[in-house]
Amino acid sequence: MRKWIALIALAFIALPAVADEGMWLFNRPPRQLLKERYGFEPSRQWLEHLQKASVRFNSGGSGSFVSGDGLIITNHHVGLDCLQKISTPEHDYVKSGFHAKSRSDEVKCVDLELNVLMSIEDVTARVQGAVQPGMNAGEAQRARRAVINTIEKESLDRTGLRSDVVTLYQGAEYHLYRYKKYTDVRLVFAPEVSIAFFGGDPDNFEYPRYDLDVTFFRAYENGKPARIEHFLKWSAAGAKEGDLVFVTGHPGRTNRLNTVTHLEYFRDMLYPANLERFRRKEVLLQTYSERSRENERRAHDDLFSYKNSRKAFVGRLAGLQDPAVMAIKRADEKRLRDAVMADEAMRARYGDAWETVDAAINESASTLRERMALSLSGRLFNTALTIVRMGEELQKPNAERLPEFSEAALESLRQQLYSEAPVYDDLETLMLADDLSYMMEKLGAEHDLVRRVTGGKSPREAAGEAVRGTKLKDVAFRRQLGEGGKAAVDASTDPMIALAKVLEPRLRELRRHSDEVGERLRQAYGKIANARFRTQSGENYPDATFTLRLSIGTVKGYEENGTAVPPQTDFAGLYDRAADHDNEPPFDLPKSWLDAKARLDLRTPFNFVSTNDIIGGNSGSPVVNRDGEFVGIVFDSNLYGLPWDYHFDDRLGRAVSVHSQGILEALRKVYGAANVVNELTK
Amino acid sequence: MRKWIALIALAFIALPAVADEGMWLFNRPPRQLLKERYGFEPSRQWLEHLQKASVRFNSGGSGSFVSGDGLIITNHHVGLDCLQKISTPEHDYVKSGFHAKSRSDEVKCVDLELNVLMSIEDVTARVQGAVQPGMNAGEAQRARRAVINTIEKESLDRTGLRSDVVTLYQGAEYHLYRYKKYTDVRLVFAPEVSIAFFGGDPDNFEYPRYDLDVTFFRAYENGKPARIEHFLKWSAAGAKEGDLVFVTGHPGRTNRLNTVTHLEYFRDMLYPANLERFRRKEVLLQTYSERSRENERRAHDDLFSYKNSRKAFVGRLAGLQDPAVMAIKRADEKRLRDAVMADEAMRARYGDAWETVDAAINESASTLRERMALSLSGRLFNTALTIVRMGEELQKPNAERLPEFSEAALESLRQQLYSEAPVYDDLETLMLADDLSYMMEKLGAEHDLVRRVTGGKSPREAAGEAVRGTKLKDVAFRRQLGEGGKAAVDASTDPMIALAKVLEPRLRELRRHSDEVGERLRQAYGKIANARFRTQSGENYPDATFTLRLSIGTVKGYEENGTAVPPQTDFAGLYDRAADHDNEPPFDLPKSWLDAKARLDLRTPFNFVSTNDIIGGNSGSPVVNRDGEFVGIVFDSNLYGLPWDYHFDDRLGRAVSVHSQGILEALRKVYGAANVVNELTK
Repeated sequence: MRKWIALIALAFIALPAVADEGMWLFNRPPRQLLKERYGFEPSRQWLEHLQKASVRFNSGGSGSFVSGDGLIITNHHVGLDCLQKISTPEHDYVKSGFHAKSRSDEVKCVDLELNVLMSIEDVTARVQGAVQPGMNAGEAQRARRAVINTIEKESLDRTGLRSDVVTLYQGAEYHLYRYKKYTDVRLVFAPEVSIAFFGGDPDNFEYPRYDLDVTFFRAYENGKPARIEHFLKWSAAGAKEGDLVFVTGHPGRTNRLNTVTHLEYFRDMLYPANLERFRRKEVLLQTYSERSRENERRAHDDLFSYKNSRKAFVGRLAGLQDPAVMAIKRADEKRLRDAVMADEAMRARYGDAWETVDAAINESASTLRERMALSLSGRLFNTALTIVRMGEELQKPNAERLPEFSEAALESLRQQLYSEAPVYDDLETLMLADDLSYMMEKLGAEHDLVRRVTGGKSPREAAGEAVRGTKLKDVAFRRQLGEGGKAAVDASTDPMIALAKVLEPRLRELRRHSDEVGERLRQAYGKIANARFRTQSGENYPDATFTLRLSIGTVKGYEENGTAVPPQTDFAGLYDRAADHDNEPPFDLPKSWLDAKARLDLRTPFNFVSTNDIIGGNSGSPVVNRDGEFVGIVFDSNLYGLPWDYHFDDRLGRAVSVHSQGILEALRKVYGAANVVNELTK
Repeated sequence: MRKWIALIALAFIALPAVADEGMWLFNRPPRQLLKERYGFEPSRQWLEHLQKASVRFNSGGSGSFVSGDGLIITNHHVGLDCLQKISTPEHDYVKSGFHAKSRSDEVKCVDLELNVLMSIEDVTARVQGAVQPGMNAGEAQRARRAVINTIEKESLDRTGLRSDVVTLYQGAEYHLYRYKKYTDVRLVFAPEVSIAFFGGDPDNFEYPRYDLDVTFFRAYENGKPARIEHFLKWSAAGAKEGDLVFVTGHPGRTNRLNTVTHLEYFRDMLYPANLERFRRKEVLLQTYSERSRENERRAHDDLFSYKNSRKAFVGRLAGLQDPAVMAIKRADEKRLRDAVMADEAMRARYGDAWETVDAAINESASTLRERMALSLSGRLFNTALTIVRMGEELQKPNAERLPEFSEAALESLRQQLYSEAPVYDDLETLMLADDLSYMMEKLGAEHDLVRRVTGGKSPREAAGEAVRGTKLKDVAFRRQLGEGGKAAVDASTDPMIALAKVLEPRLRELRRHSDEVGERLRQAYGKIANARFRTQSGENYPDATFTLRLSIGTVKGYEENGTAVPPQTDFAGLYDRAADHDNEPPFDLPKSWLDAKARLDLRTPFNFVSTNDIIGGNSGSPVVNRDGEFVGIVFDSNLYGLPWDYHFDDRLGRAVSVHSQGILEALRKVYGAANVVNELTK
């Protein structure tokens, strides 16, 4: 599954499209490509309709409106963040699922924010104008931040919309994205996790597949269901083999135009370090979960995220460790560099870009170990760190603040910071103790920060004392401290705040260092992008930025080791697969599905594959046909799609979706959710 | 659980005993301590009886004879190696257990070797005499190896017994151990793994505990049950609170007298590197196992071993990361060094030892990354490596060979090498691909060995081709190549042999480097040991060496966070714990136990704790009373016992055993194993 988890990475760049490759900007759709390859010419209205029917889940995924009353469909594993936070030992929404028979039964999520893209404005000139020739990287980075914070604030004040300046083509362009926000979001329907994630980790990123990975929410405004003009009409027939289909969603991050040395850094350092961390946390949470059902419930979402990231990165790393893949990247880079070097003007303007990237990557590599070591994962610690930083940042003028504390961003930050989501002492202690132990391993037990943060105690003792002693579990206390400014933070003796105060100065230095390295990379990649624009023709798209993109594809099977893999699965296949595994986890069907078998049309399409270009963050994206109708919902790629991070290839790589027919049939006959069905089909 | 898995470590040394600490040599029992503390004076006969009733499992554990007809009891997790190797998809001895109703039903293990210690001879003078003053570390190490290989060969030729020279007190003494070997070993009884390892990973190394961690084998000679003179009489009453109890078994390795810098190396480098590897393999095998029941069956023993090692090392590392523990070690070292420095003669003889250890540890650290990277885990690869090395080594005179290829060791080596244990292509490919990927991560994709070993392919492709192409799965082929000498190996084009040939030269260099570092450590630790002998009084024992030791203790509960933990559990507690977890894995009772509940005396003692000093390798050791009767069987320590690796402390640390009463009651009433019960109690 492709829920997007933010990780350390840097490059976005202009990309030439091959095959069905492309994560296209809505203000720059691939008209030529669509016309030539598919004979399709999207109208302005068609595009606007898709854009405004698309929903971004700020917890890390995508979705879409599917009724005029604010009904939204997304993946179960995107909705999981909400399901986890509203669950209790008595009512486990993750395990048991949920169906609101009427609107008054719908359950409010605690801290979910949804965004709908209303407009895009090109602000490149103003952003670029702020950076003066002769500025060093630090100065350039600060000047850019200042103008971006200012643009966002002005836009927010003028429109009342969430306003984000997005860096595209790695700094060649800056677009201002304005979003309508929904923060009153309620759960309407979720299936049991055992059918939503049928096949578990073994089937994750695999195909053929049999998952009902969907959840329905409803957006509310002023206590009433939101009135939605642009929503997707449900296609009863759904997608079928050979159809042209579009995916509209929020791919998180790709690294396709990274230089070879940049990818080698991923291969040799960053991805192995990430994987070590993911495996470590997976083992930690897995063993915690095995101790009791209640533990399993508490850790479910976190454990899923680590397992999912681990499997994704194993696939990405495997691609980078394949000399054939690297050879393609090397040849591509050589072609471009040769063209630059052969042209005197280009050589003068762009020739030094690759060495600049190399130097910046070396700089970045030099702090990787420390950045990993000081990147703590517990919720209480990160709450404390945010509060400590907020005290510092809010003293400054808006233009000088870290982006997440800018005026335009504060409301969303507070939504997260003062969330009523439950905090579990035992889990927090486990995670923090492991983080402190990891820090000790990576930096050495005698490192000054390690000594100060553990205070002469063992990691377990130090973590236990901080978690037991902190009052940050109390939202009122958290708010009081957060809104109390620097004076309140300085005066606080809360042990978790004390811990954050120890680490914050060094984390701030590392952040500044990363920002400066990022600026150098931006400038160098900007040159590479321009060199590419000048040496290649055709339409281009920028690397993914967790902003709305359109991707194009065809419903299509593939051939794997001489065997034809069909483009879609059905319910019969689901029951067969469960039976093959004696209905044992993770291949166990919930009781609702065992009971419903006789009532179902077993030939109903369930999951299907298409060649659409996606990446983590696209989870929950609607799949739509030429008529803009909802024909399915993306929830995964197959294993061959994992290297799409840096190299698209649709010979075997596919996006995997739940079919619109399968969803309806399940709602009707497994769950008796007539109210949802009626709303979707009226 | 405490099955001993060999890991990189170096130091053995003389230790002073405190409390019930001590892993005593059978030729140097702690007579004074036993007399003074317990008023007990063991006779020669008593000691000889225990010694010869004790059995070493060469797969990594301990056991004991419990009948005159060769019946042996050990832990289920020690017997697991055999159970795994004789299992098939149709008959899974691990999952279902086994009970031979008659001797003709007993099932032969495929490659198990058992050793019984018959005699100990001090050969220190001869070994030390081979090392001449002025030799450098390499020369000294080779001279020592030569004389040891020669002594072992002479002893084997003269007695026909397996003959091992054991390095004790880190080189201060060398004793020749002679063993009677049993290689026809048959399975008599094993419970289902779900009761043997009830509570799984969550309860592993925990207490209170409820595990029937036992398996019975029978030693055969010439196709008939072995006639055994020394076997332990079964105690019907078993151990009770306050009893003096003895453990006789084969602790694998301890590091108690390591210098502080040596322990810091463990804390900062070796243990984190081991843990990274364990977690990685755990995740790999866990995900493989989840794919199907057959996968789970194939990977069971390996997965258990990695999980077990991971949990053990997390505990060991936690101790080293506790400043309070390190403060004890530092104070102890300072006391000794101050005493040495205060005495001119001692300073001259021993004063440089600590710096020598520091330098040797730095040397060792410098190759750790590479040693880890080149340490591959698959069975086929290691078979190939052994064959390649054997071709090289058998050309040399006995005195110059690596110890495992010396004349005295060859028979045991062949027993392993030509084992009929099943090999699974998919599992071998998975492990080898992961090893190659790990190698690429650690050494870099451009490293010469990495390029040559992968041959320009991805790790997955390279591993797949080597596993598919090799004929080493065929034991006849393996034997032909192994016995064909260097010419056959040189001529072989087998792809796995080719892979081993690429790595063998560098592995040999690293081995020589480690051996030389080991020699320097031996000499330095020899000085430290002598300094300790001269500054301390009382009886001493050497660090563990996977040879027979006697440990002393008391059956005794403890107080944990203000709560009294009783010294024993009972069957009622087992059923309660299963019910608390709705009988779900890993707290699920097998059907045999669910059915038997009404028949059982629920107050029967099941598991108990004692203060005996143990470590991994002691698994399966008998617990005996003053009368030399079997009162229980060690299978674990609690979490507080994990740091016993380097620091014994029995305030909370305990050995955990299965009670002799519990075993009998289960055999009788759960399994109806009257034949076994009769043999134990006749």
